[in-house]
Order: sequence, then C-alpha cells, then structure tokens
Amino acid sequence: MTKWVYSFGDGNAEGRADMKNLLGGKGANLAEMCSLGLPVPPGFTITTEVCTAYYDHHKELPADLSSQVETALRAVERNLKVEFGNPANPLLVSVRSGARASMPGMMDTVLNLGLNDKTVRGLAEKSNNERFAYDSYRRFIQMYSDVVLGIDHYHFEEMLEDKKQQRNVELDTELTAEDLKELVAEFKAKVKEELGQDFPDDVQQQLWGAVKAVFNSWMNPRANTYRKLHDIPSSWGTAVTVQSMVFGNMGNDCATGVAFTRDPSTGENSFYGEYLINAQGEDVVAGIRTPQAITIKGKEKNGSKLPAMEESLPAVYRDLVTIYKKLEGHYRDMQDIEFTVQNSKLWILQTRSGKRTAPAAIKIAVEMVKEGLISKEEAVKRVDPASLDQLLHPTLDPKAKVQIIDKGLPASPGAASGIVVFSAEDAESRAAHNEKVILVRIETSPEDIHGMHAAQGILTSRGGMTSHAAVVARGMGKPCVSGAGNVRINYATKTLTASGVTVKEGDVLTINGSTGEVILGEVPTIQPNLSDDFAQIMAWADSIRHLRIRANAETPLDAATARKFGAEGIGLCRTEHMFFDAERIVAMREMIVADDVKGRKLALAKLLPMQRSDFVELFTIMAGLPVTIRLLDPPLHEFLPHTEADMQEVAKAAGVTVDAIRHRASQLAESNPMLGHRGCRLGISYAEIYEMQAQAIFEAAIEVNQKAAEKVVPEIMIPLIMSGKELEILKGTIDAVAQTVFKATGATLDYLVGTMIELPRAALRAGDIANYAEFFSFGTNDLTQTTFGISRDDAASFLQTYKNKGIIEHDPFVRLDEEGVGELIAIAAERGRKTRKGMKMGICGEHGGHPASIHFCQKIGLDYVSCSPYRVPIARLAAAQAVLALGKSEVTPLAKAV
Amino acid sequence: MTKWVYSFGDGNAEGRADMKNLLGGKGANLAEMCSLGLPVPPGFTITTEVCTAYYDHHKELPADLSSQVETALRAVERNLKVEFGNPANPLLVSVRSGARASMPGMMDTVLNLGLNDKTVRGLAEKSNNERFAYDSYRRFIQMYSDVVLGIDHYHFEEMLEDKKQQRNVELDTELTAEDLKELVAEFKAKVKEELGQDFPDDVQQQLWGAVKAVFNSWMNPRANTYRKLHDIPSSWGTAVTVQSMVFGNMGNDCATGVAFTRDPSTGENSFYGEYLINAQGEDVVAGIRTPQAITIKGKEKNGSKLPAMEESLPAVYRDLVTIYKKLEGHYRDMQDIEFTVQNSKLWILQTRSGKRTAPAAIKIAVEMVKEGLISKEEAVKRVDPASLDQLLHPTLDPKAKVQIIDKGLPASPGAASGIVVFSAEDAESRAAHNEKVILVRIETSPEDIHGMHAAQGILTSRGGMTSHAAVVARGMGKPCVSGAGNVRINYATKTLTASGVTVKEGDVLTINGSTGEVILGEVPTIQPNLSDDFAQIMAWADSIRHLRIRANAETPLDAATARKFGAEGIGLCRTEHMFFDAERIVAMREMIVADDVKGRKLALAKLLPMQRSDFVELFTIMAGLPVTIRLLDPPLHEFLPHTEADMQEVAKAAGVTVDAIRHRASQLAESNPMLGHRGCRLGISYAEIYEMQAQAIFEAAIEVNQKAAEKVVPEIMIPLIMSGKELEILKGTIDAVAQTVFKATGATLDYLVGTMIELPRAALRAGDIANYAEFFSFGTNDLTQTTFGISRDDAASFLQTYKNKGIIEHDPFVRLDEEGVGELIAIAAERGRKTRKGMKMGICGEHGGHPASIHFCQKIGLDYVSCSPYRVPIARLAAAQAVLALGKSEVTPLAKAV
Repeated sequence: MTKWVYSFGDGNAEGRADMKNLLGGKGANLAEMCSLGLPVPPGFTITTEVCTAYYDHHKELPADLSSQVETALRAVERNLKVEFGNPANPLLVSVRSGARASMPGMMDTVLNLGLNDKTVRGLAEKSNNERFAYDSYRRFIQMYSDVVLGIDHYHFEEMLEDKKQQRNVELDTELTAEDLKELVAEFKAKVKEELGQDFPDDVQQQLWGAVKAVFNSWMNPRANTYRKLHDIPSSWGTAVTVQSMVFGNMGNDCATGVAFTRDPSTGENSFYGEYLINAQGEDVVAGIRTPQAITIKGKEKNGSKLPAMEESLPAVYRDLVTIYKKLEGHYRDMQDIEFTVQNSKLWILQTRSGKRTAPAAIKIAVEMVKEGLISKEEAVKRVDPASLDQLLHPTLDPKAKVQIIDKGLPASPGAASGIVVFSAEDAESRAAHNEKVILVRIETSPEDIHGMHAAQGILTSRGGMTSHAAVVARGMGKPCVSGAGNVRINYATKTLTASGVTVKEGDVLTINGSTGEVILGEVPTIQPNLSDDFAQIMAWADSIRHLRIRANAETPLDAATARKFGAEGIGLCRTEHMFFDAERIVAMREMIVADDVKGRKLALAKLLPMQRSDFVELFTIMAGLPVTIRLLDPPLHEFLPHTEADMQEVAKAAGVTVDAIRHRASQLAESNPMLGHRGCRLGISYAEIYEMQAQAIFEAAIEVNQKAAEKVVPEIMIPLIMSGKELEILKGTIDAVAQTVFKATGATLDYLVGTMIELPRAALRAGDIANYAEFFSFGTNDLTQTTFGISRDDAASFLQTYKNKGIIEHDPFVRLDEEGVGELIAIAAERGRKTRKGMKMGICGEHGGHPASIHFCQKIGLDYVSCSPYRVPIARLAAAQAVLALGKSEVTPLAKAV
Repeated sequence: MTKWVYSFGDGNAEGRADMKNLLGGKGANLAEMCSLGLPVPPGFTITTEVCTAYYDHHKELPADLSSQVETALRAVERNLKVEFGNPANPLLVSVRSGARASMPGMMDTVLNLGLNDKTVRGLAEKSNNERFAYDSYRRFIQMYSDVVLGIDHYHFEEMLEDKKQQRNVELDTELTAEDLKELVAEFKAKVKEELGQDFPDDVQQQLWGAVKAVFNSWMNPRANTYRKLHDIPSSWGTAVTVQSMVFGNMGNDCATGVAFTRDPSTGENSFYGEYLINAQGEDVVAGIRTPQAITIKGKEKNGSKLPAMEESLPAVYRDLVTIYKKLEGHYRDMQDIEFTVQNSKLWILQTRSGKRTAPAAIKIAVEMVKEGLISKEEAVKRVDPASLDQLLHPTLDPKAKVQIIDKGLPASPGAASGIVVFSAEDAESRAAHNEKVILVRIETSPEDIHGMHAAQGILTSRGGMTSHAAVVARGMGKPCVSGAGNVRINYATKTLTASGVTVKEGDVLTINGSTGEVILGEVPTIQPNLSDDFAQIMAWADSIRHLRIRANAETPLDAATARKFGAEGIGLCRTEHMFFDAERIVAMREMIVADDVKGRKLALAKLLPMQRSDFVELFTIMAGLPVTIRLLDPPLHEFLPHTEADMQEVAKAAGVTVDAIRHRASQLAESNPMLGHRGCRLGISYAEIYEMQAQAIFEAAIEVNQKAAEKVVPEIMIPLIMSGKELEILKGTIDAVAQTVFKATGATLDYLVGTMIELPRAALRAGDIANYAEFFSFGTNDLTQTTFGISRDDAASFLQTYKNKGIIEHDPFVRLDEEGVGELIAIAAERGRKTRKGMKMGICGEHGGHPASIHFCQKIGLDYVSCSPYRVPIARLAAAQAVLALGKSEVTPLAKAV
C-alpha cells in the first residue's frame, strides 16, 4: 500500500526536511520543525504523489487515501483533545498547498475549515469570544466559496461593505458578533443563489472539497505562468498540508507575523520581520492594515511609531529569537518564518529558505562561510548565477513611477534612458554631440553596429532573444529590448507609436533590458557596485570549477571588459564585425563587386593592414591568453550598400557602374541567407579572402610576440564546416599562408586550426572532421537553427505560442536543447575525440552563458564555454555549480550525456 | 611483397575476369580471354593499386615495381622469341589504360613503343616492309610526344601535311619509306626544339614514361569530367596494360576492327561491326578513313559498296564468328570486341560488355533470358534504371542540327519546343489559343503553377536540381532546364539574351531537360514508345523487389499518370498546390489577412468544398490504394498577392484596405522562410486550417467509400514536426475532427495520422514522436537542407565549385547523402520502430526516385519510396536491383546502415 499521508505534531513527525519532493517544502519543514521540538500546530501532509495520481487519473483521488486521512485526523484530535465536526469541541484546520519549490501566493489555501452553524457555537464557547467565532466563520465561508466553490469574492466583499455602511462603521473590527451572524446568513444565502445549493455544512465534505481545490490550483493559470518563469516542471505536483488552526485574532494577546533571520534585501545579519496584533495571516499579506516591525531596530529604521513586538509581546519575542536562531543554525540558511501568537503562546506555522536579492544572497553566503555555518562549496551553490545580471548592469530605481508603453523581450540586461533616434547614422551624430540616445529599429543588421555602439540602448520591434540586435547588444553589455511587437515604427516620419502614445525623434524613452519594458520619459537608474563579497564568491567559484571561461569579443573594449570580468581567453572573435567601419566597408564592398580574383585581391590588400592592426590590439590586450578567431562568416550580400549614395561611393571606388553593383546585389541575393553561400563556403569559393585574414593573423601574432613576454598562440576557426574534405582544403590554404609569412618575416609561431561544429552533418561527421581540426567549437546558435529548422530571426512569430502550449519548456536559443542539439554535441564530442585524443572543445553560442547549458557542457566533458563579456561572471559561477551538482565521478569526459 | 604485375599470354594468365577492380576491365578480360584459349597478344597488367599508391606518394611509383615489370617483360620475350630494345629482333608494345569501369577515349594510350633508330631497322627487316616500319616509327614519335612529352600533336600533323604537299600527294599512304624516314628525323628535331632535349631512344625510358603518362591521364580534366558524369570515384584508379603489338597495317592481308555481338543501338541479335584493311586501331577511331562493315548484311544496311570482311577475309571472318559466339556465351552479355588481323592471322585485343542504348539494353536482357543465357534477375540487373528516362520522355532527334545558346541543369527530362513567354498568365492565355509555349522565368513560385501546367516546358535562369521549377516540372513530367545562369531575363522588355543572341516573346526555343541544353528555334522530337520488352522487365522487377513504390501526386492527371506507370499509392499529396487556382487563391488570401479566428474560419469555409472535391477525385482514381495527404506546409506569405490588382481583389473580398494587406505582408515576411512559420507550426498557431483540411479529407473519404468497392484509408501527414508534443496536440485536433465528421455523417472509416521526419531534431526524437505517429515519411529534401545547412534555392552558387573541388561527389539534393542525412534516417527508423513495432516508413523527397538512394532505403528496411510519377518505373527497377545487390540476408530491417 502506498503511504499517501505523513503526520506531524507534538514533537514527532513521519516526515523530514529532506523529503521535499514528496511532502513539498512546507510539509517537509513542518515535519522537521516538529522533530526539532518547535511549537508547531499538529497536522498531516498529503504527498505530491497524490497530486500526480490525481492528474493521471482524470482528477480521481486514490481509493485508499480517505482511510489514511481519517487515521491522521484522529491523531490530531487525540493530540489536541478536540474533534473534527464536534459542536461542543471542534477541531478547525487549514488546508494549504506546498510544492517542492516555493511558489508564494500562486496556489490556493483555505483557513478555518471545520466551521458550520453548530461548531461555530462551540468555538464561541471555547474561546469565550462570540465575535471572534463568527468572524472566523464568515472568513471561512468567504474563502471557501471563492477557492472551492468558484464564487467570485467580490460578492462577499460588497456585502461586507454594505453591512458596514448600514452600521455606519469604517473598520471590519467595528462590526459586532450580531452583525457578523447576519453576514454569515447573508453569505450562505448568496452561495445558494449562485450555485443553486447550500453551502456545505458537512465538515468531511468541506475537507475533501478543499483538498481537491488545492490540487486543482496547481494547474491554474497564474501557477502555470509562475512555473514557466521559474523553470519548475508541472510534473512535480503539489502536496497538501492539513494543519490544526491556531488563531492570531482571538484578542490583543494574539498576533500573526512573518520574520526573516537576516535582511532579505541587503543580506545584513540582523533579525527582520513584521507582525500584526489580533489578526490572521492573510491580513498581513492582504496589506489592509500596516504591519509593525518585530524588532525595535526595525521600527526605528522604518521611522514607525507603532510598537515593535519586542516591546508589545516581549516574552513571545524572546521565544521567537531563540527559535529563529535554532532554525537558521539547523537549516544553515536564511529562513523565512511564519508564526502566530494565540493567547500569548507562540506557534510556528512555516519555515523555509527566504527569497533574497542578489546582493543579499552573496553577502549571506560569504558571511555564513565566515561564521563557519556553511562550506565555500555550499556558498557557491547558494547564489543563483542568473541573478548576477542585477549586479553587473544599471537597474531602474524601483521607487520611480513609470509609464510602460510596451513590453518586449528582455534581450540584453540593464536599463538606459535616452533620446530616440531611428537610424545608426543619427545615433552616431547625436552621440558625437554628447547626447544619450536610444536606437530604435524594426530590426538591426551588421550595418547598424556603429549606431549600436553609439547608443545607450537598443529597441527593436522585431526579432527574438537571439536576433542580431540581442546578440550584439549582449556582447556590448548594452541594454536591449527586442521584439516589442506593439511598437509601430515609421522611419519616414521618424516616429513610433505604442499604447496610443506617439514618440517622435528627440523624445526621451527608457528601456529595461532585464524585463523588456519600454517606458516613456526618463527614469533614474542605479549604477552597479561590485562588492568584496562578490569577488570572494567568484574566487571560490574559480577554485571549484573545471570549465575554462572565455568571452566572445572582437573590439578592444569588449576584450578589456572580458578580462575585467575574469575571462580566460577569447572563444569567438567574429572578424566580420571588423569590416563595418566606415573606412573599411568601402574596401569590403569593392572586394565583393570585383569581377575576378585580381580585383578581389586588390581590395583585400586594402583591408589587410586594418585587419592586422585589429589583431595586434586584441593579442596585446589578451596578453598570451588564447584567442580564437573565426574567419569571415556571413554571406557577402550583408555587406552590400543599400542607399543610392553608398552605391555611388562603391561604384566610384571600384571603377564600375551603379548598375553593375545592382546586378551584383541581385546575383548575391538569397532566399534563405542562413543556409546560403556563407562561412567556409566563401573560403572555398574565394580562397583569397581567408588567405588575407590568415595573413593578418600571422603577421599580427608575430609582431606582438616579438615584443610581449607572453606569446600568443592564435586559434584560427573555420565556420560552417560540413565535411572533413572542406576543412582539409582550407587548413591547407591557411598552412600555406603561414609558411609564406614565416618565410617573409623570418619568424615562426605556434597556431591551431579548428572548426565550428554548427551543422548537424558536421556533428555526425565529427570523426572525419577531427582528422583536420585541432579543436572544435560548438556554434550552438546555428546548430540550434538547423537542428530545429527554426530561423531565430523569424521564430518570434510562433515560439511564444509554443511555450504557451507547453510544446517547448524553454526558448532553445536561450537554453540549450539537450535532447536534440545536445545529443548532436555529445555525438560530435565523442567521435571527435575518438579520432583525436584529448581534443580541445568548447561552445561559443549564446548558450555559453546560460547556467543550465554550462551544466550540460560540464557533463559531457567540454573544456570551455565562451559567452558575452558581461556573462563571464555568471558562467564562472555556473561552471562551479555544475561541478558541485555533478559530483566528482560524473565530471569526466563524454558519453553519459545521451 | 605486394604483387603489382599480372602476366598473360599463350593460353595462360595470372588474372581472371572477376579481377576487374585490380586489373581494370581491359586487363581482366585479356587475362580471361587468354585462359579461354583465344588468340591474345601476350603482355602484362600493372594493377590499379599502383595507381593509388602513385597518387598517395606524390607521384612516386612503388620501389619494387620495376623488377616485377622486368620479369613480366622477359616472359613476353620468351613467349614471342623477341627482345625489347634488341635491334635485330625487337619487341614492340602498346601501353594502355584500363579502369574498373570503361571510360572510352578518356585516358591516354601509346602504341608501337620500343622503336628507336636501331630497332626500326630490325622491324623493317623482320616485316620485310621498310615503309611499314618507318610509318610505325613516325606514329610512335607523334603519339609519344603528344601523350608523354606534352608536345601538341598539331606540330606533327602540320609537318605531315607539309611533307605531302612537298611530295604532291594526298594520302598518308602515298608517302614512301624515304619520305617517312625524313619525317622521323624532322619529328625528332621538332621534339628537341620544343623540349631542349632529345626524343628518348632508350626503350626502358620510353616504357616508364608511357606508364606514368597513363597514370597521370587518370586525373586529366576530361577523365575527371567523365567520372563525374558517370559516378566513378577517383579513388578507383586505372590499371596499365603493356601488351605486345600486333599490326593491322603491314599490308593488304592485315586489318583492324571493332565488333559488337548484337546491335548496340536496337539490341537486335545480329553480329555487327566495322573494320579497315591495312590500318592500325587508331585509324578506325580517328574517322579519317571510312570503315567497312564486317558482315554482308551490315554492308547492305549501310548501302555501302566497299566489301564486307565476310567477303574480303572469309577465313578470318569465320574465326571471328566462332570467337564472338564463344565470348558472348562465356560472358553472357553483349560484347564489344577489338581485333587486329596481321598477315591473315586474327588477334583479339580486347573484349568488354558493350555500351548500348536503353531500348537495346532492355531488348538484349529480355532476349537473353528467353535464350536461356541469363536469369530474369540478371536481366533486371542489366538495365540502368536512370536510362529509362530516355524511354519515358520525348527526345530530340539526334540527327537535327542545333544551335545551343546555354546549358543549364537537366532539371526534368524530356525535350520540348515552343514560343517563349515570360509569365504564367501569358503561358496560360497563349496555351488557351493552342499555342505551344516555353515558360521562361528567373525562378518560379507556387503562383506560377498554372502557367507551368499550360507550358510544354520550363526554363529558369536560377535554382538548382531541386528548385521549385525542377521539382514541380518533374512531378508534371514536363521538361525543365533550371539554373541556366548565362541566360539574362528581362521581364520588362520580355526578352532573354544568351551567347549574344536575344530572344523575344513569341520567338521559338527548344529545351532539352535531359541534358540542360537551351536551343534556338524548333528541333524535331521523337516520341517515346514503350515496348513489350519494357513491360517484361518491369514485371520481372516487380516480382523481385520488396519496396513499395508510390508517387508524389496531387492532381487527377498526376494520379492517373502515376497509376499508369505502376505506382502503388500516393506517398505525398501536397495540399498547398490545391490552393493556387484562381478561384481558390482569393479565399486563401482572405484567410491569411483575416484578423481573428472567426475571419479565418469564414474564409476556410469557402475552401472546404473545393478541397473536399479534390480529395473525392483523388480517392476515386486511386481506388483503395493508400493516399498520404500532407497538410498545409509552406509559410503563409507564399500565398499573398504581389500585384496591385491582386491586392485590391483580396482587399475587396476580405473587406479590408490595401494598406492592411501590405501591413499583413510585412508582418509575415521572413528572413529565412525555409526555417520559418510553416508546416505544423501553422497547424499549432491556426488550428482551424488543419481542422478544415482534416474535415475535407474525412468527408471525401466517407463519400467515396459509400460508393466504391475498395475502401480508402487516408493517411494524414503532418509536416515539419520537431517533437512528440507537437504531434500529440495536432493528432488530437485531427482525431476530434474525425469524431465530429463521424457523428455528423453517421459513418466511420479507418485512417492513419503520421508525420514527416524532415528535421534533424525529429530524427533524433523519433522514439518519442513515434508515440503519436502511425507512420513516418522521410522528407529528405528538407532533411538535406537542414542537415547540411544548405538552402536548395541558393545552393547553385557554390555546389558546382564543391563538386569541382571534390568536396562532394554528388549533389545531395539529387542523391541522398548516406553519411549524414542517411545516418539520421537510420537513427530515426531504429528509434521509431523501437517505440512502435513494424511502423510503416517511407521516403517522399526527390531522392525517392534515385537508384542509389532507393538502394539505401532498401538497406535500412524502409517500406516504400515515393517519387514523381515519371520516375515510378525507374524506382520499380532500382528497388529490384537493390534486393539483388544486397542479397537476401541484408534485406532486413535497420541498424546495419550506419
């Protein structure tokens, strides 16, 4: 027989804290607290397995559940010497949800269950407080009707308001017992009117109604949304805890409250919390009355005049202090504690790890290590890597009032305000006059990069989390909101409209790249400030992790930022980004429109010195750290001019007609550029392009090596390889260039030639490709596009629908799809290393900065991840957590992944 | 020690006919003929392994080769009692190439090797014919200089002409021994002039020079091209056969000739061939003298007055007849025999299976079965499936003189002439007036389909073998030349230019879809005529093959054609092709521009009856055979109007503004439509579209089943699935529609819901997808695109370069890439069948009609292939050949493929 029900109470419990998966966080902790001897109202927990069974069997509960609940209920009755449904001596219970992970306020709760017209009188007699009894009864009817019977609570609120008007009073507490008796009758009549049947008097019927309602609430829309936001699988299910009621609202020697063992906002090690005299828990949450501070210190900090609990209930406060210390010491984490004081007796209703801000998480973790409470490994585990984004970027002042006009995708974190401009050129010229600008485009292209550099932030109305705008902005560490679909942009009139507001060029907008919000006008921001605690956590993470962390960077600024954040090399330098500068783009275009090899070589000769000096700068900054340089990747048409003026300029420089340029553009146009003539296909068709790039790399490396102490070993990376033969040919080209440069300069150097694995075929053929590749870098962006057959530029139109329908749990461009793309990576890693033992492998897609994806990279034994500079700290922390999560035995190469 | 050399001669041989891979076709057959006791001049063969080693070691021959050659040469000397290089009694040899597969005329040959100023005198004495000796010597110098020394032969031809002018004679044979002696001296002087060194006198140097030249000729451009055209891997290499010379030019009792044991053009069982008195083999090939017929019957057929060999050399002729019968009986195939008569003695120089036309191949195979010479399995193996295209489509009269103005890709076989038009509308209206038209477009789109239907053939200047034009034309069985890159099309002036010729609308063009030729003016064509022999071969193939053959078809005409050619069902009915008719496209567009579900349903309701009647027609024609219907696949923007008039029409019908339509078009525009919002993604976003299609299918099937004897079991296929969850949802939608239709009609029927596997992720997740799919159809077109990351619309710009550089052996859109795409198919098949035992699987991409790909499908145990109707006979034959090639044991499911 499956055990569906776990009892607790009176210093005993069938459950334990480590049974969260089965009992939910709440149930497990109640059991644990009971075992610790803390004053916990007795009760029992129905397991999460019941929830799963309920959904698997068309919302039928297991047959043997009711007898197990009956037994557990009898135990509570014996413990408290009361009886469920007994008019003379009634037991009242709460029925609450409790999932494995905390989902505050997302699911339903019923309090005061067990009251009916008979037991309410017993409660009045026992408490000697008729008003309290009927107030509890009317609250119960109100809550039960809402949660279980589905009658909207506004009906009851209106009736309560009417009653107060009739009685000419303002506060609920001013209503008398008689008023409340009338209200109870009116409430019950309303239920009958709405449902056509009576409010249930039978306490068993009440109990099972509430249990089912909690299970049903697991799948309500707000719970579904919360789970999606917090990566909680719906398969976990919720437990239901049925617990005897204690009352904080039986008089002025009663109270209810919430406390944190440390400050959840700053992490400061001081007891913190709020309470209300003569109230039930829901009153604290509802925000109708202003809660009071628990400590005198807290009261002073708030500037409040209401007495602290330390003053009003000093004995209870002392008990609470003893208990909180015991709890924090026991759980070795900051606790969020709910308590009730009934007639001066303290009851602990719940404890759990408290939610905290990112700075608080870091401070608490570091201090707890210093206090000897936890190990540095534990501290590293405690900080959510994703939360570091809050620390690295400016954030909006939370106190500011804002007018949000649209919400797009949070494409690149941080916040920025500025004057709206609609072209890269305007962004650049305004910025040159020291104006702060927000660049607004329908979507961006490589031609906009100089404008993106000049802008404070970027807003696009199209494109997803890995659109051009998003990827480039993240690389630059600039805030970006992409795919703000309700923003209509008109380039002709230089205006945008959203939510009925029209914004003209020169007006001020603020974007919050961490939330996707587009806000009218300027909003004050708070600048990031990296604490010593942050540095300490990073140092611990570095001592634990195995994966090397590199950055995707091509500009000197990117490279310097990457090093500041602790990058151990460059994993992806996208050389094409170096061709968009005003002086270079013309030479690049000359090359493209040239008729023959000779013409192309002439134009490439102009690009060579510029490209070489780029690499000199980059190698100098990186000072001997590995630098992986990807040769030209995008299709040539991305570089072609669009405006008449630009076309004329190129025509003049190349000595051809504008018509010839138009013809060339139409020749190069592609139906699906993502799958077109790009990557190494360009290197095969136009060997001279890769030759020039290789020459620039070798010459730059030799120049730097002649001066620098740390020698650079450039890693030349060929994109979009699909077969060993391609790489064999291109490696031959590069090796030949190396020999030529060595001969010309009289110097030599070490270098590696490797490839991106970014096509399914490359993953499958990795064994052959590894014959010619000295390293693999998994280009997970393109590999995701081809494996799924989804263009990231076009995915926005349906990926949201896919998420809403539960077809995908995560955007595969944000979090690596382990089942599909991941299997290909694992296959490639295994086959590659079979050919070439100990081959260096890493990933350089956007996923390189995603904690779950980093975990996967560790699991299959990659050597490094490379991500945008601002995600380097996240990656360092996530890599350490991966080692801790996997355990020593699993942190070895390959094969187990699939 | 590796054996590099195999001797033959005097009734003995070290080789055998089945050693073709090692000795080449020529060497193996010479050895075999020797063993058969036929009169073969003795010699030896250097193996193909030497060729491979030669290329693997930077053109160095194996060290121990020379001693092996020496030994073999000694054997020839002993056998003939002559000596290589001995002035008194010289051995002369020929040095010839011989690859595993015949490559006639592609590689180099040297004859008369062993002559120098001394041996030539020995030859003169021995033959008692000084003129013959010096003629042989000048031929040798001429040939050796050209082939080995790289001196262009025109130099020698000019000198020969000069000499004839000096002597005032017309024919070579009129030159005297003295003249030839002078010529020899002049030739040698020329060599010295060109090379700066003497023509080699040393016979060993001559021999090794020639051997290397033959190996080098393996990689000459024309051999490379030939191999590419005939799918011969360059890794096979060529053998070199060194054979003692016999002379057909020593006088009028000498001759040389070529004979076929049956007529290679018609297949008729009659001896056929040509010979020349007093000539060397090269004279027959060179075409300088007109050869004479071997048989009297042949002479009469040609209307020739020159005597047949049967008359001029009756004894030799009788020997030849005996030998040809022996050879055909031995090899059990039509033989192509080369012979020389030296002083009335017949020598056989070569025998091999003769090349033949497709009709001849079929006739010979069928008749040889009847003669008891071969089995029906052998007959089925003998016919090249690809050659059937010649039989099924009209071909150009080979006698016609043509002016070719460009050569594009042979996208859809057959030939057609017609008036040039530049739009689908013009094609339709001209065709309505009974004009034959060729539709010329830069590329075609689904909007052009009605024009393609109306046209005799289609010519495009862009797009590859699987471009829209190519795929649709093959489906229709219409000739198509695609990607004719030198044809510049100007829609505005309605002209095209190519090779300096301008063709206006109304001018006549001819296209040859079997060769890719674009020809000016009209060319007479020959209509196909399917023989009884063809039917017999097909019947034998059907009795052997395991794979079912279906057709890709959606129109009644396609379906009827498919059945005529023996299709056993429809494997792919592309429903979107049904939406482009004039009356339908407006409703389709209304649906697309509709703002909400209601608007879409309204428009879909108009399409429902049309779609239903399509299916009624299709099901009726297919009479109970399986019909797989793919639900809507292309992105919606493909259906949107482009012209102002079309936009206005839709705006009116949908009750919206033209601006709203433009806005919708810009909303739907995609950067990479291939990877965009299409396939099942449409079904997920707009369930009502697939609901309408499912309803049409079920209603049509019920209507047909109520009348027909054979019940249709529709197979509904969901495109572009990437996960099980997608299919679960869509199968749910379809099952719900089925229930509704069953309820409404009071009837039920059986149906299947399955999916395309056309994304790498679908292949990897096939195990999960099979939980919901009742069949898999591998969409190898899209799977190739995503696995390679190559858009077939854009691939033309680099795939040719890839072929030229040997990166790919075949266009992966024509022949399935077994290493990459094939592995994914094998993985999917295995995982799918693990979930669902015996699951039905097939392929429906363009590869379904390619023999090598069909072989692969058989190997991994698929159930069927589906191809365009005109390829059905090819597929039937190829499927039978696959069974024969694999052998019984391999023709079982799965797993061995990778």
